[in-house]
Amino acid sequence: MAHQRGAETRYRIMKAAVKRFSADGYDAASVDDICSAAGVSKGAFYHHFESKQALFLGLLEDWLEGLDRAMAAAGRATVPETLVQMTNMLPGTMASAHNRLGMWLEFWLQASRDKSIWKATIAPYRHYRDLFSQMIQRGIAEGTFKDVDPDASAQAILSLAVGLFLQSILDPKGANWQRTAEQSMQILLAGLMKPATIGPSTRERGIR
Amino acid sequence: MAHQRGAETRYRIMKAAVKRFSADGYDAASVDDICSAAGVSKGAFYHHFESKQALFLGLLEDWLEGLDRAMAAAGRATVPETLVQMTNMLPGTMASAHNRLGMWLEFWLQASRDKSIWKATIAPYRHYRDLFSQMIQRGIAEGTFKDVDPDASAQAILSLAVGLFLQSILDPKGANWQRTAEQSMQILLAGLMKPATIGPSTRERGIR
Repeated sequence: MAHQRGAETRYRIMKAAVKRFSADGYDAASVDDICSAAGVSKGAFYHHFESKQALFLGLLEDWLEGLDRAMAAAGRATVPETLVQMTNMLPGTMASAHNRLGMWLEFWLQASRDKSIWKATIAPYRHYRDLFSQMIQRGIAEGTFKDVDPDASAQAILSLAVGLFLQSILDPKGANWQRTAEQSMQILLAGLMKPATIGPSTRERGIR
Repeated sequence: MAHQRGAETRYRIMKAAVKRFSADGYDAASVDDICSAAGVSKGAFYHHFESKQALFLGLLEDWLEGLDRAMAAAGRATVPETLVQMTNMLPGTMASAHNRLGMWLEFWLQASRDKSIWKATIAPYRHYRDLFSQMIQRGIAEGTFKDVDPDASAQAILSLAVGLFLQSILDPKGANWQRTAEQSMQILLAGLMKPATIGPSTRERGIR
């Protein structure tokens, strides 16, 4: 019971923090503000999070877990199918980041001045690059991908995703980001896949 | 003569600004600091630049002109050749951005709070998307590219470039960014080009 209450408190703090960070910005939202919005004591806050920065990193992790779940859920789908499914999830991720540009920039700026926070901030990029590299190796083994360099291909996928994400928060109305993400991934996949495996049958199987 | 002296003063201010912004950050470097580093009066400064933000935007434009020159110089090269040449220029651009992450974040943060500055900040993205789209149309017309969607393909190229740029300033030591940029562009090009036009002959012609 105590454990469950702890998880609930943690969840309430994180939910309140998203609201306060979005409304007031990362700098202006204080731990006090977050505590009163969540209805918890400062003692409870510091039991769960070492600092405001640690809380923000926790939100970042939560937010990235969707991608991990998608990869785990992919199960027996081929690698191109999995990548298309992950791309379809990207616009939801983007939408939740809209209008929060200031918050992100403020956090990155603070993080860039603190080495250990910075390390934790960039860790996800390296994590996803490794995961994508493993996926590409699986694609080569299963015969859907050409004999490409797995690390370079993983980096290309990650850079495309990071670029789409940054541009969509910088310029939300500059494009239909959902359609843009899908089409961009299709072009990259066409460059990675064996010619024989591209075609209507692949596209149909990508939906299941 | 007066015109030449004006251009010289402008150049001296911009050179001093890069030094001060890099060393002190965008926020801490004042117009006074930049004036004394450049050896010019405040009157001369405001003759050339409306504000510190306008000066930063001027630096941004200067820095992007290299890409425009590369496109103009491409002349009669095929579109894939031009794109490879532009990619080869990217690492130089990246290197000059290293260790200036704080400066970029501070500027973006200030810009995100001012609508007119923000518009000027994102204008280059739209400009390059249009230029890339025209290049893709030329590639389809010259027969090197498949019959792809020019806007979506342009966006894919731009997102890849933006993602590579952001990741290289976030994590300079995380990869060999020059090799990564080249290989990523090759994969994207393989997805855009007609199969018959990919091969050693294209690669050789890419050098001329």
